[in-house]
Amino acid sequence: MVQAMNKYISTFITIVAGMLFSMSAMAYDGARLWLPAASDANGATVKLEAKGAAAAIAAQELRDSWSGNGTVVLRVKRDKALGEDGYRIIPSGDNLTVTANSGTGLLYGAYHLLRMQSMGKPVDSVITEVPAFDLRVLNHWDNLDGTIERGYAGKSLWKWEELPGKVSPRYKEYARANASVGINGVVLNNVNASSRILSREYIEKVRVLADIFRPYGIKVYLSANFAAPMQLDSLPTADPLDKDVAKWWKKKCDEIYAAIPDFGGFLVKANSEGQPGPCDFGRTHAEGANMMARALRPHGGKVMWRAFVYSPVDADRAKQAYMEFQPLDGKFDDNVIVQIKNGPVDFQPREPFSPLFGAMPSTPQMAELQVTQEYLGHANHVAFLAPMWEEFFGWVKPESLKAIAGVANIGDDENWTGHPLAQANWYAFGRLAWNPALTSGEIVREWLPAGVYGSHDVPADIKSGIEDMMLMSREAVVDYMMPLGLHHLFAFGHHYGPEPWCNPEGARPDWLPSYYHRADSAGIGFDRSPSGSNAIAQYPEPYRSLYASSSTCPDNLLLWFHHLPWDYKMKSGATLWDELCRHYERGCVAVSDMQKSWMKAKPYIAPELYRDVEERLATQARDAIWWKDGCLLYFGEISGMPLPDDVTAPVHTLEQLRAVDLGISNYESPSTSLLNSKR
Amino acid sequence: MVQAMNKYISTFITIVAGMLFSMSAMAYDGARLWLPAASDANGATVKLEAKGAAAAIAAQELRDSWSGNGTVVLRVKRDKALGEDGYRIIPSGDNLTVTANSGTGLLYGAYHLLRMQSMGKPVDSVITEVPAFDLRVLNHWDNLDGTIERGYAGKSLWKWEELPGKVSPRYKEYARANASVGINGVVLNNVNASSRILSREYIEKVRVLADIFRPYGIKVYLSANFAAPMQLDSLPTADPLDKDVAKWWKKKCDEIYAAIPDFGGFLVKANSEGQPGPCDFGRTHAEGANMMARALRPHGGKVMWRAFVYSPVDADRAKQAYMEFQPLDGKFDDNVIVQIKNGPVDFQPREPFSPLFGAMPSTPQMAELQVTQEYLGHANHVAFLAPMWEEFFGWVKPESLKAIAGVANIGDDENWTGHPLAQANWYAFGRLAWNPALTSGEIVREWLPAGVYGSHDVPADIKSGIEDMMLMSREAVVDYMMPLGLHHLFAFGHHYGPEPWCNPEGARPDWLPSYYHRADSAGIGFDRSPSGSNAIAQYPEPYRSLYASSSTCPDNLLLWFHHLPWDYKMKSGATLWDELCRHYERGCVAVSDMQKSWMKAKPYIAPELYRDVEERLATQARDAIWWKDGCLLYFGEISGMPLPDDVTAPVHTLEQLRAVDLGISNYESPSTSLLNSKR
Repeated sequence: MVQAMNKYISTFITIVAGMLFSMSAMAYDGARLWLPAASDANGATVKLEAKGAAAAIAAQELRDSWSGNGTVVLRVKRDKALGEDGYRIIPSGDNLTVTANSGTGLLYGAYHLLRMQSMGKPVDSVITEVPAFDLRVLNHWDNLDGTIERGYAGKSLWKWEELPGKVSPRYKEYARANASVGINGVVLNNVNASSRILSREYIEKVRVLADIFRPYGIKVYLSANFAAPMQLDSLPTADPLDKDVAKWWKKKCDEIYAAIPDFGGFLVKANSEGQPGPCDFGRTHAEGANMMARALRPHGGKVMWRAFVYSPVDADRAKQAYMEFQPLDGKFDDNVIVQIKNGPVDFQPREPFSPLFGAMPSTPQMAELQVTQEYLGHANHVAFLAPMWEEFFGWVKPESLKAIAGVANIGDDENWTGHPLAQANWYAFGRLAWNPALTSGEIVREWLPAGVYGSHDVPADIKSGIEDMMLMSREAVVDYMMPLGLHHLFAFGHHYGPEPWCNPEGARPDWLPSYYHRADSAGIGFDRSPSGSNAIAQYPEPYRSLYASSSTCPDNLLLWFHHLPWDYKMKSGATLWDELCRHYERGCVAVSDMQKSWMKAKPYIAPELYRDVEERLATQARDAIWWKDGCLLYFGEISGMPLPDDVTAPVHTLEQLRAVDLGISNYESPSTSLLNSKR
Repeated sequence: MVQAMNKYISTFITIVAGMLFSMSAMAYDGARLWLPAASDANGATVKLEAKGAAAAIAAQELRDSWSGNGTVVLRVKRDKALGEDGYRIIPSGDNLTVTANSGTGLLYGAYHLLRMQSMGKPVDSVITEVPAFDLRVLNHWDNLDGTIERGYAGKSLWKWEELPGKVSPRYKEYARANASVGINGVVLNNVNASSRILSREYIEKVRVLADIFRPYGIKVYLSANFAAPMQLDSLPTADPLDKDVAKWWKKKCDEIYAAIPDFGGFLVKANSEGQPGPCDFGRTHAEGANMMARALRPHGGKVMWRAFVYSPVDADRAKQAYMEFQPLDGKFDDNVIVQIKNGPVDFQPREPFSPLFGAMPSTPQMAELQVTQEYLGHANHVAFLAPMWEEFFGWVKPESLKAIAGVANIGDDENWTGHPLAQANWYAFGRLAWNPALTSGEIVREWLPAGVYGSHDVPADIKSGIEDMMLMSREAVVDYMMPLGLHHLFAFGHHYGPEPWCNPEGARPDWLPSYYHRADSAGIGFDRSPSGSNAIAQYPEPYRSLYASSSTCPDNLLLWFHHLPWDYKMKSGATLWDELCRHYERGCVAVSDMQKSWMKAKPYIAPELYRDVEERLATQARDAIWWKDGCLLYFGEISGMPLPDDVTAPVHTLEQLRAVDLGISNYESPSTSLLNSKR
């Protein structure tokens, strides 16, 4: 017992010493992410009993950075329980053995060891890990011109104009970071896809990236434009039942696989927001998807077909994906996966789950989560998204899904994600894609040591302050942007600031906030109960009943499902208006609390990182007040009700806020937000 | 008894009906100030038993606006107790008699009646009013080019380029407003005086104004440049002991009095901030003042000689007026009055009284108060100054003063004062100059009915909210700008925003905030105790002893007199740092509370007035946070101490605030302050 304790302590000291050595030498720039530096060579003894590039990388990672005593054996060994990617780590005295069915499994095992080392945790019992999903995919909304739709961390990582001749060292760093959290697929280009990505010229470029990613267990996928046969080769149609069209796709797939034998397949946004698709030719989504799936099938490729559709056929956009896709259940080939956004509208700070999940029992489904903060403050706000995804997995059981996709928040900024703390969202997406049973708390405690603290020995109360800051951050965003189930009050276009009043000429009604908040003198909220759009009928029990009545509907989704009077009595006893005001206030106070946690941690954080986050937090605090003022001034004008006494008065007038123009495109995070922006 | 009651009620109803009639007809534009509209003719019966223009105006004002029943008799009648300007109002049945020694006295009596009418108060007993000071003077810091130094309500009222030919109707309105609150002198031009005001050309212009003001009992004064003989007529010197110089001033006075027989005299800023003065020629302030006084004496004119001097002879600017002027006690002619700013530095949100008051028993003294909000948020912040002046009269007994001057906040803006609520400061100055025993509460209750409510019948709780808003406003400014005796943390030049860090190249040390706050790692505050500059020694008992020790010095002047450690234990038990932080927080919360009082009063306020003040309050709220953030971030960096948990975190970074440049001159109020301003 005493001996075991001693060993524990000595391992611990070794690990801490290793960390100190590795982190203190260089200034923080965020480039390293949560990974150990390649320069931290301790010369660990690694015995490699496996072939292939992935296994070799596993061995090298441990030689570079593992600081435990004893020998680490990496061994490929048949073990049905582990599947393609799983691994087992077996400690024995000072030595460790990692086994897996593949080199990639060994690589994941190696990163597991380094993760434990970063957390200062000893490996003192057998660890067995098998991922929950076979497909763990990042979706890049990167355009070929280098811009990123909803990208807030600079330009695209992919330097198409340099490829295939010139190769950025960051391609490999990117693959390494993904592998370290278990991501095994990347869609390189925007779902609003240029057909050019399928041209011979671009396939040559994609091949280079695929070659770099392959040793890290990562397959390349491409977003395909459904009209590519017409656009690239002037076919008269893209009708999926047209033989020439089908032939074109078969030939295209042959061409791709000749260059990239393990090409993953296509992601398709069809008949959505102006993109072409099978419905243009009187065909169904299933007919379109299956045609492409058949071209990929001989090569083992897959189609990920997005269910994000909302043609203006019904008064409630939230119902439309279900209405269009549910009837197609059973009509899709088995190498098609229907990719569904977590909520029925569009990545709002809080949505209920999309009722399409579980409603197509004969169709493979996957969830599309958004890692980039399109609707959660871009790269300016701390919004740790694991709690949002944890909430999602509380509704939608991982077992019901075949795969998982995350819309990446990665760009060519030195620190990859713009906001340094947004690295945690990339990390969390990967970790949850591997193991959706992880709690947000577990993930943040895994990430913080390497992601924030570096070599510092941080007191427990400071750590818990920072953990709380991360864990409360998404709810803070909900509170100061859109509490109580409100949604899509965003400024037209850039989705950053509040414009509940916005009403540009000629805009689609379902692109306007008033479509969603429906505020009038009688009250606020979208009636989706049986007396309204009855979107509730799409939900399975127990949710259908729960959401149908305002008395049982949870407060945090109340105005998603109900239009209620301003003086509606909430569970707290307060009026709806007062409660709404208090949520906005709470959101602002929460940001202040987050700032104070960060300030207290100052001595334990690299100065560059500290200052960067400090400044972004100040912007977030200003923005929170901007949101609160914009929404409460606007709704206050409609409700005619006064601010409750415990809510801070506005520091703007509605007139001033109506005049705000951030002047940013959909590819940018605003720099200092309100401080310098006027129409 | 019942009959008396009935009469009371009927009078009251008549008055209210009159108000409704008079106020509801026109939209609010602020131009009318607190005065009844000239169009509100009720045809009151007025019997005029006096001659002269002032008495005639008195009668006309009552005929235009008095809505009581019965006859009002205006009668000049010798009555020693009333002095030059006093009056007596005697009710008798439905009739009233006003008596005075002069037409001006009758005019003041008439305005008293209209004031009571505006408040809805019946005249049911004898009223006797005699002003506390014979001289009640507004100082205009208006330049001849139309700019106003520290003016935030547009350009100068005086259109010099139009005079003497063209006469603005506002000259008369201005005189009427002054007379209605008892002001009987105006200095037309800036103390940083252009000699041109004494030229023949300008005397002709001034004469026109004097003619307009005379019927309202107002005398005109001019700020004189001490070097005028050199500048206007190329004399080789302005030495006050030079015979030609003395002759020049005598001639100049003869010339002025030929045009303006009741000319009041000169206001002089000499040897102060670069202005010329007798010290340039080796003479004392007394020798300079007396030379000018002797030129004025034959005509009955006076010299108001400012004691605002601070040559860099001593380490403590706060001591210098006393050091330079106290030894001159008894040396001034009796038609010289030494004009002393209320505090020893310069119109800060809170200063102790200047120790020069009472320290020159053989010299007439007058106080110079500042009505314009140079250091209290310009025309953007609500800062009702009566409480500050009430505080001053708690220290300096009115009986010890010969006269009183206020630096005007009036410009050519339609509403006269920029901030509509700043009209209350003009009003309050006049009322306190007449009767310094009035409380701030009495004054605000006098002013609000005509100044804000108009024709509205306002519920008691709303009224008390607005009264509180006004009464707490100056302390709020102190809290969010410079609590605990801090002073002069202002941005260089425009004195609007915070720049405790400001340090432009080549600036005089005593123009820099660090000269005043003296913050260092050990603590903060200016040690003026015996261990420091010993400015305390200039104070009489009991103040000298009270201020000498930090344990007896009131909290609100603590850092004016003491440099104390950051962890100094305050009377509250908190550390100095925490207390400082909480004052800034309290100031921000106070503005929010003021906003909420205003919002609640919305139904009772003219929409134009409501919106104007609402917007300025939002600016004030933003500015309060700007001040709090700027000061606490800066001092926090020096103290190294963390924000207490009950204080909101900053919404700016110090770097951002250091970069702020409002881009305004000393003649402007910033328009939207922080929203749109960067270096």
